[in-house]
Amino acid sequence: MRDIFNQELRQLGSDLESMARQVATAIERASESLRNGDIIVAEQVIDADERINDLQRDIDDLCVMLLARQQPVAGDLRAVISALRMAQTLERQGDLARHVASIARGRYPEPPVPEPVMGLILRMADAAVRAGQNTSRLVATRDLELAALIEAQDAELDALHRRSFTMILDPANDLTRQQVVDAVLMGRFLERFGDHSTSVARRVSYLVLGSLSY
Amino acid sequence: MRDIFNQELRQLGSDLESMARQVATAIERASESLRNGDIIVAEQVIDADERINDLQRDIDDLCVMLLARQQPVAGDLRAVISALRMAQTLERQGDLARHVASIARGRYPEPPVPEPVMGLILRMADAAVRAGQNTSRLVATRDLELAALIEAQDAELDALHRRSFTMILDPANDLTRQQVVDAVLMGRFLERFGDHSTSVARRVSYLVLGSLSY
Repeated sequence: MRDIFNQELRQLGSDLESMARQVATAIERASESLRNGDIIVAEQVIDADERINDLQRDIDDLCVMLLARQQPVAGDLRAVISALRMAQTLERQGDLARHVASIARGRYPEPPVPEPVMGLILRMADAAVRAGQNTSRLVATRDLELAALIEAQDAELDALHRRSFTMILDPANDLTRQQVVDAVLMGRFLERFGDHSTSVARRVSYLVLGSLSY
Repeated sequence: MRDIFNQELRQLGSDLESMARQVATAIERASESLRNGDIIVAEQVIDADERINDLQRDIDDLCVMLLARQQPVAGDLRAVISALRMAQTLERQGDLARHVASIARGRYPEPPVPEPVMGLILRMADAAVRAGQNTSRLVATRDLELAALIEAQDAELDALHRRSFTMILDPANDLTRQQVVDAVLMGRFLERFGDHSTSVARRVSYLVLGSLSY
């Protein structure tokens, strides 16, 4: 019984790692599609989101089965509940990467917004990519130094997000209304992506330390 | 043991109902603050969000305790897992109502955007209020007719959201950049509010029918 449980817990861990890796790839590609106006890459992100959603359903099913059949307690129970929630958060990050890619695709072959706003959005995208990569590493290693790094990257994203409004509102920056709309939406999607990475970082910290609120 | 469990399940149900009621009140007041430029009401929404967040933590703690001590199976397990998730969704809806109220407060005493865009945003706010009220009723009664109604209201919100972009981009509508920014953000917040109501509706349906995916 315990052997099966451990095996299922390992499966759960490996599914979560796979999900986090796919989310990291999604935001990398979404960022690349923005930077290079690459419509093929944008479409890869959009298509691949379905697999991330499928993985969430698999993880959900596995968690419910584990709770029903194994009735875990203490650390094992925490692991299962955390997995349920991290899967939900990662699924949402996949959606946000897809939204960013959709804007890149929608404006092809033009960049969605001109400089210098585009430069700021790309810096936000870079920060989101780093957050996604570190989230993926954190889920795999549970190295809490990565959790601290993710929170710092999220703070950077928030600061860039605030600056994006200053830039968007600056009349010296020539922007069409469509560009204002796109800049606001991209900023919001990337900022939320960072929030979700922080949420995963806190859950992993809770799992490792067992004492934080989650 | 079973008596205590039933009592705790009832507590969980009543906490969730209270949370859903508070979210309905939050979106009602956020909508009112937009419509009447009422800064006092806007601040009530912002202040009250802390209580919604507290309730989520209470529900989380209760769910984890129930899972650890009572090791529920079948329908009871579904109820506890659904409560965990619905609390997370309702917490997010509270945030979105707060964001809407913040925009109303930030532009006081002016309305955030002029007509006809404001009229459309207020129609979105009305649909979000109805979705919030029906979500609250659904959590209390589990009447699945309300679930269908919520999904219809969410579809209406999505349609209004798409129309908001057409209006925002129409050069015949005189808008400053700040107004474009605010209109995009309010539209996004209200549209997401509806998505979350649909998510709660589906979870309640799953709970009642026991056969849907969640």
